[in-house]
Amino acid sequence: MARIQLYDTTLRDGSQGEGVNFSLQDKLLITQKLDEIGLDIIEGGYPLSNPKDAEYFQRVRDLPLKHAKISAFGMTRRKGVTADQDTGMLALRDARTPCCTVVGKTWDLHVFEVLRVDEAENLAMIRDSVAFLAAEGRHVIYDAEHFFDGFKANPEFALRTLRAAADSGAALLCLCDTNGGTMPEEVAAAVNAVRKELSTPLGIHCHNDCELAVANSLIAVDCGAIQVQGTINGIGERCGNVDLVSVAANLALKKHHEVLKPNGIVHLTELSRYVYEIANLQLRPGQPFVGSSAFAHKGGMHVHAVNRLARSYEHIPPETVGNERKVLVSELSGRSNIIAKTTKYRIAEDDQLMRNILERVQDLENIGYQFEAAEGSFDLLVRKEAGLYTPKFQRLHYRVGVVTEESQVPVTEATVKLRVGDDVEHVVAEGDGPINALDTAVRRALLRFYPSLEQMHLVDYKVRVINSAEGTAARVRVVIESRDEHDTWSTVGVSENVIEASWLALVDSVEYKLFKDEGLPD
Amino acid sequence: MARIQLYDTTLRDGSQGEGVNFSLQDKLLITQKLDEIGLDIIEGGYPLSNPKDAEYFQRVRDLPLKHAKISAFGMTRRKGVTADQDTGMLALRDARTPCCTVVGKTWDLHVFEVLRVDEAENLAMIRDSVAFLAAEGRHVIYDAEHFFDGFKANPEFALRTLRAAADSGAALLCLCDTNGGTMPEEVAAAVNAVRKELSTPLGIHCHNDCELAVANSLIAVDCGAIQVQGTINGIGERCGNVDLVSVAANLALKKHHEVLKPNGIVHLTELSRYVYEIANLQLRPGQPFVGSSAFAHKGGMHVHAVNRLARSYEHIPPETVGNERKVLVSELSGRSNIIAKTTKYRIAEDDQLMRNILERVQDLENIGYQFEAAEGSFDLLVRKEAGLYTPKFQRLHYRVGVVTEESQVPVTEATVKLRVGDDVEHVVAEGDGPINALDTAVRRALLRFYPSLEQMHLVDYKVRVINSAEGTAARVRVVIESRDEHDTWSTVGVSENVIEASWLALVDSVEYKLFKDEGLPD
Repeated sequence: MARIQLYDTTLRDGSQGEGVNFSLQDKLLITQKLDEIGLDIIEGGYPLSNPKDAEYFQRVRDLPLKHAKISAFGMTRRKGVTADQDTGMLALRDARTPCCTVVGKTWDLHVFEVLRVDEAENLAMIRDSVAFLAAEGRHVIYDAEHFFDGFKANPEFALRTLRAAADSGAALLCLCDTNGGTMPEEVAAAVNAVRKELSTPLGIHCHNDCELAVANSLIAVDCGAIQVQGTINGIGERCGNVDLVSVAANLALKKHHEVLKPNGIVHLTELSRYVYEIANLQLRPGQPFVGSSAFAHKGGMHVHAVNRLARSYEHIPPETVGNERKVLVSELSGRSNIIAKTTKYRIAEDDQLMRNILERVQDLENIGYQFEAAEGSFDLLVRKEAGLYTPKFQRLHYRVGVVTEESQVPVTEATVKLRVGDDVEHVVAEGDGPINALDTAVRRALLRFYPSLEQMHLVDYKVRVINSAEGTAARVRVVIESRDEHDTWSTVGVSENVIEASWLALVDSVEYKLFKDEGLPD
Repeated sequence: MARIQLYDTTLRDGSQGEGVNFSLQDKLLITQKLDEIGLDIIEGGYPLSNPKDAEYFQRVRDLPLKHAKISAFGMTRRKGVTADQDTGMLALRDARTPCCTVVGKTWDLHVFEVLRVDEAENLAMIRDSVAFLAAEGRHVIYDAEHFFDGFKANPEFALRTLRAAADSGAALLCLCDTNGGTMPEEVAAAVNAVRKELSTPLGIHCHNDCELAVANSLIAVDCGAIQVQGTINGIGERCGNVDLVSVAANLALKKHHEVLKPNGIVHLTELSRYVYEIANLQLRPGQPFVGSSAFAHKGGMHVHAVNRLARSYEHIPPETVGNERKVLVSELSGRSNIIAKTTKYRIAEDDQLMRNILERVQDLENIGYQFEAAEGSFDLLVRKEAGLYTPKFQRLHYRVGVVTEESQVPVTEATVKLRVGDDVEHVVAEGDGPINALDTAVRRALLRFYPSLEQMHLVDYKVRVINSAEGTAARVRVVIESRDEHDTWSTVGVSENVIEASWLALVDSVEYKLFKDEGLPD
């Protein structure tokens, strides 16, 4: 099947999403990554809107991009001025990008009620803007805002706006479902109608307000659109733009179109997580194709079947998109799950032990633990039940104090007294906060006995109130992610006290590391 | 258009989702709520799988349900036993529900490779199971697992399994896209093919692995399916089941089908949040229709247009589904956003003040604040910039200590010294954890001056590491949600120290409450 262009607007339309904030450096890093994977066009920003975006277009020229073309975004010229006197047009010109994307009004309602101009002026605004940028030698993409709503309200009016852009030199007309309210069959009908009237190549730009953005994008391609605009992970205003990750995976794996660079699909999981990391957003575990749970199996029956035959409960092999299978431990788990998670201990034959592990998991889940995201703690639990555990140290006490004067930054101090074998270590440490101080003190106490702790450090720390109805007096679950030079692991602690919950997760993390270093029991 | 049955499996298939754990009480509460809103069938559990589900079916008989029918879920009888000797069949019988849902194998691959029986035995398992439950007087729904994969692999084989169920008394055949890998056009073709062969009513059961579950459910209805199975908020294994919330809203508002009870659609947002709350899951702000950001506007331009004409950037009025519009404050905000958020202060004419507020927001966002989810803190910021703020008290110091011995529960103590007017209050309090102790101490110090604080309490507490690359030494953002008898409000604090960040959010929460009680400035 034909190649479909992927047009990424993570850095522009994506940044309209709630909680999304890219620094200039973030934008350059993401641009580089998108290029590596083979995105065709990268809309880097809206140069008129803020100085950061304007600076981006200067800096991006120094990036050694291999494939992607950069586009600058703007609106048609304002009413009543010529294009060469419009600040938005000049900002696009000065961005010096190979592409420019100009958005114009298609819906008569918007033209008359929001923009407050007549049809002739709206068409002139479109024509002047496209022609101005085309004359500058740019590849001009015309985004028809609210195309589907406009087409439904007044099809002839909407088509005249497209024709104005096409006749003035637009290289591609992108039909936008700006409000995200259009049904797939309406997208198909409108795209077919435009194709009958105009020969300019078409693109599609969908929002997910009806949870149909992916379906709408795919059906537009089925009807002949050659470009899909969207964002990585579907970030964007309201319910988001279409997720280009899902679009790329579906186009490549289900519809057999060429997208990205050869084998680019294998990097989709990496790309998705990279953007979450840079944008500092929580990933969505259930995100199609690339989520951490996208190939997670919890029901004992499913796990059993997947062990026999992977595709029995997997629509594609997870590695096709760079993802991996995950087996979850929970009260719904059957023996199959526990066996799958404990194969390295070779204890599958021991029925009583399996039952004990399952019961212990259920008991701890009842008081707020969750092992699905805390494999380090689960591993220690198995060791404890299997008699393969002796504590690496014993806590005699800890004390944490945070003290402040007036508006000054508080001072935090932790003391820890631990017994290691026959020795007692009593140390004190300061920290930026209580967890940092405790972590530092624990390591300081143990380092003499376990030098490998030098290589371990905490990489993330999450707190969740389990029963939020009681506010700060409720139980909290702390999950800590740690790393050494080889691995990353997560551990969990639960308590009414956030310090104690953190302590429990911290101790598990240190013990997991030490057992891991020892290797498997014989 | 015809009424479409909504079949909810939140309590069964939904509970296969990662991080989902319902107690018996949770399940009963959700059942009650689903009934109130007009769900037609509620699949309450899998009685064979665990004692909690078996007990649910006893207890649910005492609920005063008005509309919904309860269904119990199970598999076809095991191979080689009669239905009346199969423990699963007996568990379904003993559940004494008006409906039973039996899942059977459709895909030849699964029959031969996973189940390991021949075709004749598979058909007998389906026939015996359906007939056994029908003879017990149950309304039997037959779920054809992997129907679309099976139909693609071997259409005749797949159709024979459906016919076996239909001929044995199944009231409805539900076609399942168990692996979630099917494209909408494939769903349409398969549903049309089944309709040509069989007259039994059809249902559709989709998973979201390709982000097409909603589109697939809608197209099945377009092709004649009369029942949609799904879960509230789309919770479920891997990428989840189809979200019945989106399905109901689309069927009612876009396709004009009758669903739920009259006006039930207006309660969708409430239902969605109720299930998140009971399941103790984070809500997805961008969730279509009901997410807290589903009608959020951030770009200054959009806010401007929405103020002129709501439907210019909203595909439906938010109140149709019980949701509301939200205007976000961020560096992308134009004047319009700030004006929309500050109307009550009547300061819109003051250009310099508007610029100052915007700059202050940007400065604070740069160090990790976010006001999008902290309207209480934003309100105080506006007051401060507008000269409408005098502090309610001054902190002289606080001290927080957490002390523990061996494995015992730690003891937490906070002291707070505050100046209120000419008085100095110095108090101490214990708490379950440091935030609880600080909160108690602050209230104790202030109650004499501000008795209305008695009515205020914390309802949620969230911690987010902002730059997780540095682990526990990174900056943290704390968001606190508080409530009194009239309102709920959120406030934010940022610091390297989680205690200090909590303090800042706590102080904002108390001050917001006190200013709110005073009413607006003249």
